[in-house]
Formats: sequence, C-alpha cells, structure tokens
Amino acid sequence: MTDECLFCKIAKHEIQSYVVYEDNDIIAFLDIKPVSKGHTVIIPKEHFTNISDASDEILKKIIVVVKKLSNALMKITHAKGFNVCVNNFKAAGQLVDHLHFHIIPRYENDGLTLDKQPQGELDKDEAEEIVDKIKTIL
Amino acid sequence: MTDECLFCKIAKHEIQSYVVYEDNDIIAFLDIKPVSKGHTVIIPKEHFTNISDASDEILKKIIVVVKKLSNALMKITHAKGFNVCVNNFKAAGQLVDHLHFHIIPRYENDGLTLDKQPQGELDKDEAEEIVDKIKTIL
Repeated sequence: MTDECLFCKIAKHEIQSYVVYEDNDIIAFLDIKPVSKGHTVIIPKEHFTNISDASDEILKKIIVVVKKLSNALMKITHAKGFNVCVNNFKAAGQLVDHLHFHIIPRYENDGLTLDKQPQGELDKDEAEEIVDKIKTIL
Repeated sequence: MTDECLFCKIAKHEIQSYVVYEDNDIIAFLDIKPVSKGHTVIIPKEHFTNISDASDEILKKIIVVVKKLSNALMKITHAKGFNVCVNNFKAAGQLVDHLHFHIIPRYENDGLTLDKQPQGELDKDEAEEIVDKIKTIL
C-alpha cells in the first residue's frame, strides 16, 4: 500500500513538493492544485488512511503543526481567515488515501463557497435517537 | 466576551443542546442546523476564538475526541465518510467566535458539494516565495 501511495512518496522526498514544514513525523507542502493562495497539505510520514485509523499521538502532533502553520500562512499571505479541512473516505471527497489536513487561507470576497449549506432544522426525534445510541458506544 | 458567547452558554448548559459527548474540558453537541444527519460540533469549554489562539493542549484533546466521535457517528448513522472542518475568522465562514470543530457525516450520493474547487495549477514563483518566507517565520 505505502509503496504505491503518492503522499508516502512525497514524505520520502521521492516526489518533489514545495515543503513548508518538516519534522521527524510530519511533512507539510503546498497543494499542487490550490483552492487559494497558500493552500497547504499537512500529512504524517507514517501511512494512515485518515482520521478514523490514525493514532492519537500523530493526530495530536499534526493539530499543533496545523496551528503553527496557519498562523504563519496568515502572516505571509495576508489572508483574513482560513479553513482547516480533513476529508475522510471517498464519500467525503478524500482523493488520496493517506491522512491529510488542508489549510485553505481565505481572503475578503474571495468568492469561494466553502460554507456548508444546512439542510434545515435539527429533527428532535433524530437527535434523541443519536444521543441515545452514542451513549451505548462511547 | 464569554458572557455573551452562545457556545460558552452551551458549555455551561445555560442553553439546551443535544449533547453527544462531554468531559471536563470539551463538550460536543448536534448542530441545530445540520448539513447532514449526525452533524456534530465539538468545542472546548474554555473560550478560544479559533485555532489561531487556542492552546496546544486543548487542540490535542479536541482532535482525539474528534476521532472518537467520528468513528461512533459512522457506526450509528451508517455514513460512508465524514468531513472534519474548522472555519477560522469571518472571511472563512466562522459564524460563532468560539473555536468549534465540525464533524459532517457523509452518505453515498448525498448531493453535498463540500469539495473545494481548485483554482488551477500551483504557480511556481508564488510557491517559491511562500516557501522562502515561511522559513523566516517558523
């Protein structure tokens, strides 16, 4: 699996990328098809599919790097905000099956429509069902 | 600030919500205007504006809860994937100025258009400029 994985190859520098951060466990690079200026992808060097199978330890390390990089990118790009997004599994738009966090700097009136459209008000019966079921799992 | 903050009030149970998880530092509840079935919001009880000013400690705690809750929500809702999103600052669509992580369960052919539209290929000059500048900050 990891031999074929695009992001594993980037992590091993077998494929060139514009690296903006690297440590022993994590590498971050500019997205080659940026949604906005400064669009950055942060990945663990170890192969995990996505958040669902990632170790707690690597998630903790990544989220601290996400904060550090977001703040640096805001300064550099003069962005007015940023989205942090992780797509998990194909149904959620995950294109590379290696855990990756997106940082998407945002600019005033940049015309991006990243906001989620609510589907209506929360249904009380559905809500109570979810609350009840989740208690049995957690 | 925190006296007026909607999410601080939810954290203190001054406003009712459908709580799906709670510990000493974190509370998670169903979004009242869900984008999809099981749409959940995870917040720290302490007030932070967003990722940019959150403590490393709370971010580490939250991301582990995000993983745990995502996996539970997938089981309960039979979703086929999920998006994790954090909007930071108004320009990025942040509506409540209290750090919150969204988990949005996704279903086959749910018709949601959450995928980010690339604006074209990465510009090499721009990329090199960002890489150079970020080295001076990090």
